[in-house]
Amino acid sequence: MAYELYYWDGIQGRGEFVRLALEEAGADYVDVTRQPGRGTGAMLEIMKSEGEPHIPFAPPFLKDGDLLIPHVANILFYLGPKLGLAPEDESLRFVANGLQLTITDFVAEAHDTHHPIDLSLYYEDQKQEAKARSSAFIRDRIPKFLGYFERVLTRNPQGPNHMVGNALTYVDLSLFQMIEGLTYAFPKAMKKSKAEYPALLALHDAVAKRPNIARYLASPRRLAFNEEGIFRRYPELDAGS
Amino acid sequence: MAYELYYWDGIQGRGEFVRLALEEAGADYVDVTRQPGRGTGAMLEIMKSEGEPHIPFAPPFLKDGDLLIPHVANILFYLGPKLGLAPEDESLRFVANGLQLTITDFVAEAHDTHHPIDLSLYYEDQKQEAKARSSAFIRDRIPKFLGYFERVLTRNPQGPNHMVGNALTYVDLSLFQMIEGLTYAFPKAMKKSKAEYPALLALHDAVAKRPNIARYLASPRRLAFNEEGIFRRYPELDAGS
Repeated sequence: MAYELYYWDGIQGRGEFVRLALEEAGADYVDVTRQPGRGTGAMLEIMKSEGEPHIPFAPPFLKDGDLLIPHVANILFYLGPKLGLAPEDESLRFVANGLQLTITDFVAEAHDTHHPIDLSLYYEDQKQEAKARSSAFIRDRIPKFLGYFERVLTRNPQGPNHMVGNALTYVDLSLFQMIEGLTYAFPKAMKKSKAEYPALLALHDAVAKRPNIARYLASPRRLAFNEEGIFRRYPELDAGS
Repeated sequence: MAYELYYWDGIQGRGEFVRLALEEAGADYVDVTRQPGRGTGAMLEIMKSEGEPHIPFAPPFLKDGDLLIPHVANILFYLGPKLGLAPEDESLRFVANGLQLTITDFVAEAHDTHHPIDLSLYYEDQKQEAKARSSAFIRDRIPKFLGYFERVLTRNPQGPNHMVGNALTYVDLSLFQMIEGLTYAFPKAMKKSKAEYPALLALHDAVAKRPNIARYLASPRRLAFNEEGIFRRYPELDAGS
């Protein structure tokens, strides 16, 4: 039976980290809210269900038969071995999960650059605070996170082509997406700093060229970044603005 | 061999979620940075190690033999089955992990109430923004998260004594700690809202009375909350201030 992915329609958002894994593996999956006749209503129905015992707090979530799995890192931990995108060594799977959870934190901080105060307000209502938070993010947090990932990558005992182990995992795919998103949101800041992360950039480029990923990125299934998602391009928040 | 827990000395912080599991299970563990002769230096040595292939981004992390495991939810996913604090049913372990990751997000939001703009600055330097973020947190986020957990708890097919399955898991222990922390940081807001979450409060009280937990809470190993940790009591951020 096909995996069912549930996420907000119209944005890449957190759902994209799961999509990339499903696409790379050529897995049989349905992106439910984008199906004519199902849409976002099908997702809200589960989230508001009275009968479902394990409703998720928020999308994305995956449905595999009767099992509902929320949270990107949890979904990838579950799917990784089934899709051939997790390390074979069981203990390395906890290393992969640790890296994925660091990406999770990085994504949340990237989101908060445009929503530092109140999720229920528009960006425009917290613009000044967003500028202050973005400056700190660009100055301190991007170098801290990317520097960390570069260090882990270059010290991988199996070589610097993968974050963990000797083959592609979902962590590599998620880092590709992270760099895509940061480059969309903060093009000037990223242009300045890219030279400092050569191994990460090489990993990003290698992922983009994988046949299934390249085909996916060129397809209509890959939505464009936009200002409804996690990574938003507000030029006034970028470096030098 | 004893588990080694690494976390900042002097605060409960994120390390506390792991400590509660180790204490409940009566596990053999060392809280490394609190050991005379080891201290925080022993932790920084690992984090800055040139030789260690899988350095963590941040504490807490657990060392089990050669394996280093970072991130609370990852540590608990790993330890849960070994400590008898995870569901026996494998698919329910992903449900537990999903709940734990929702707690992780809640903890991060609780932290950001006093640091909404810049981690490298003091609270005093972002006080006004902290007040705005705390107001939104108290108004929208506490009810959203606690309401969600109450709903999951009361709909557990195995009964409302545990978050998942028919026995105590690390998720129950973490929710105990979450309620402890919120009650410390926002006593007025929590006093007002507690009546809305009777099942959660009953779970909190039941956890506090478990013999190993009660013994731990009364011991010097349980540090007091303070204004260096995640949950801080700044009366001006509480409800009605």
